[in-house]
Amino acid sequence: MELPVPVADHGLLDRRAFLTGAIHVAGLVAVGSHAGDLVATAQAAESMTLETPPWMQGPGQPFRGYGQPAKYEEEVKRTFFQPYKDIAPGSGASMTPLHQLQGTITPNGLHFERHHSGVPDIDPAQHALLIHGLVRRPLHFSVEALLRYPTISRICFVECSGNSFFNVAAEPPQKSCGAIHGLVSCSEWTGVSLAVVLEEAGVDPQGKWLVAEGADAAAMNRSIPLVKALDDAMIALYQNGERLRPEQGYPMRLLLPGWEGNTSIKWLRRLTITEGPVYSREETSKYTDLMPDGKARQFTFPMAVKSVITHPSAGMRMQGKGLYEVSGLAWSGAGRVTKVEVSADGGKSWAEAALQAPILPLALTRFRLPWNWDGSPVLLQSRATDEKGNVQTTREQWTAQYSAGNVYHYNAMQTWSVSPAGEIKNVYL
Amino acid sequence: MELPVPVADHGLLDRRAFLTGAIHVAGLVAVGSHAGDLVATAQAAESMTLETPPWMQGPGQPFRGYGQPAKYEEEVKRTFFQPYKDIAPGSGASMTPLHQLQGTITPNGLHFERHHSGVPDIDPAQHALLIHGLVRRPLHFSVEALLRYPTISRICFVECSGNSFFNVAAEPPQKSCGAIHGLVSCSEWTGVSLAVVLEEAGVDPQGKWLVAEGADAAAMNRSIPLVKALDDAMIALYQNGERLRPEQGYPMRLLLPGWEGNTSIKWLRRLTITEGPVYSREETSKYTDLMPDGKARQFTFPMAVKSVITHPSAGMRMQGKGLYEVSGLAWSGAGRVTKVEVSADGGKSWAEAALQAPILPLALTRFRLPWNWDGSPVLLQSRATDEKGNVQTTREQWTAQYSAGNVYHYNAMQTWSVSPAGEIKNVYL
Repeated sequence: MELPVPVADHGLLDRRAFLTGAIHVAGLVAVGSHAGDLVATAQAAESMTLETPPWMQGPGQPFRGYGQPAKYEEEVKRTFFQPYKDIAPGSGASMTPLHQLQGTITPNGLHFERHHSGVPDIDPAQHALLIHGLVRRPLHFSVEALLRYPTISRICFVECSGNSFFNVAAEPPQKSCGAIHGLVSCSEWTGVSLAVVLEEAGVDPQGKWLVAEGADAAAMNRSIPLVKALDDAMIALYQNGERLRPEQGYPMRLLLPGWEGNTSIKWLRRLTITEGPVYSREETSKYTDLMPDGKARQFTFPMAVKSVITHPSAGMRMQGKGLYEVSGLAWSGAGRVTKVEVSADGGKSWAEAALQAPILPLALTRFRLPWNWDGSPVLLQSRATDEKGNVQTTREQWTAQYSAGNVYHYNAMQTWSVSPAGEIKNVYL
Repeated sequence: MELPVPVADHGLLDRRAFLTGAIHVAGLVAVGSHAGDLVATAQAAESMTLETPPWMQGPGQPFRGYGQPAKYEEEVKRTFFQPYKDIAPGSGASMTPLHQLQGTITPNGLHFERHHSGVPDIDPAQHALLIHGLVRRPLHFSVEALLRYPTISRICFVECSGNSFFNVAAEPPQKSCGAIHGLVSCSEWTGVSLAVVLEEAGVDPQGKWLVAEGADAAAMNRSIPLVKALDDAMIALYQNGERLRPEQGYPMRLLLPGWEGNTSIKWLRRLTITEGPVYSREETSKYTDLMPDGKARQFTFPMAVKSVITHPSAGMRMQGKGLYEVSGLAWSGAGRVTKVEVSADGGKSWAEAALQAPILPLALTRFRLPWNWDGSPVLLQSRATDEKGNVQTTREQWTAQYSAGNVYHYNAMQTWSVSPAGEIKNVYL
């Protein structure tokens, strides 16, 4: 069949092509390597209707109180980064397998983890949240008391400010998309507005920051400007409907939408209202951005505009020439994603991708684009723009902004190279 | 402190009261039973800052490839309805514990189940989808082939048409909210547009229906008008980001947003295009609506407008007089929910609840309302209205529409009675 004229080099098609019937999708099979299969299996159609597979020949499994993934999907799991595994097995990170998932919601079992001293086993009956410092009356909330408070919900991403740090290395690491970029996940969070409990405590006029502390063995803490705490911050109690998982801060965590993940303190036990920041370890020796002049930027809270193509991506293999859907995720700490463009020639020409509705502020947004791969070597990239006009940078632009040692706020475009043999690799441009 | 004047009897307050500072929420604690606790624990604030709980005294647990809920939340699970447990342990249903959840997304482990012969253990490498009947060319899709197709995502509810059937009984069952109304759940589904694959097969002009068949031992099937199949139907492959769970149809299911749950055939193996319906068991002897004149309505596909208060609900206990948040879920098979009203006097006076954004068509919508309970006996109800102007019925109105034997499409308002002692029960009005 005849395919529409590409809107960018190497076969990138109009984002509406699958929907308007310009391709009829039949093209996907007809042009792709499945062409032969299609005919063969269609001819076998009658015999298939007579076959009864083994799982139809007797009753299946009974009900379960809490379900689990199919055993055939065992390989869909988080990958670990444990640089000090022998001395501190709970210190490091685990990444969401973005390349094995679809849509925008991350299932709770696969939300990324970042722990500084492992996952504490907190008995909720023994846990409490203290709010003190520059307040009229210090408050002490049992978990039970907080669960009775008025709630709010929002779908938003959490991204570690160190996400994608592997791509800072001189040579592009050959890892999966999730293993490189999977320190970002997206959930529907429900909890108590932080503004509501701060108002109850009565913040003193000189109180301008708060220090949030976790109940893990690292007593992880960060200084947060009060203006954010009073804006859209939440004490999260539920994630995708159910109570938080232990690795996500059970029984309660702070949630600062769009900001560096580690400011959303997990296992939250204390909020101290202060005049200024306390310059803790995680905002001085760590989580600061080394600049070319040797200085470091502190308190660079919002995460930048960013995107990554998840399908196809490194480690996958193209199934021959033909039609594919390019699909990925985009997000920004500044608000809504407004545009994602895809290039197959390393940024020389671009085609605008379709964005899946609803496009929510500070949430992951799925983008998709039809692609007719002609079998030539290509360089796939995606570039996101947000509602504030911020545009994702090239790796060259990003690198020029920082010292070579900086590993935070990496938001450069990812390039996947596709060889004529269909091999997909991580490359730098 | 002074509370705002109620907008409906028995202390229902303006839906914006928590947000505008009209209550300051301090009222929640000051008026409620926690008043004494608050003072006591606030005084103990200093000592708490010095305490180091046991889980802060050593490293926590290491990373896990796939996370699980906290062990303290073991009681958050589906409840079973197995009327033929001894002879058919996989036949029946399991209900989502709506009263233990928050927000609108159902975690995959707690999505309700309805099986007619248990959960088949399907090897995806051995499974295929056949599309045949009145088509130009029959098609046969391996799971792998279908996974390569262009995808769409949408957040929507699935509700069994028998949901809430316990409330048809002459006496109101004393069960939890989830055990009564939990045959409804909501997920982000991702898969392939059914219109796309039907176009590829080429439906003959005389093809007006399709028969969808599952690969369970019941070979569950339903006849679906083609107009719906070509509108918003999907072959779902992913649920909340990850591949479908076995009990939700792994490796693929049909998804017909807003329609009777059992039309969204799980373990989908066959779509036969036909001129008309085949009048299968599940659309003749079952899943038809008995009318007062003894006849039965067939093919009543869309689910009606409905809501239920999840907090507080039967089996919970009020913690004394004072401020509470009334919270629940609303949905409609006709589109968006536009209004939810709450009554505390059995429907004599109503207050409009706040609806959590984004309000998505054919998805669960969370509603919330502040409530100052004065300790008197009350009758709590919620009433949903959708964008087509459909309004949820009273139980009396609903009952008048059908024969006493009908158990499908129950969408009457739920009434929870609250006694002065704080006991909450299911009652009929």
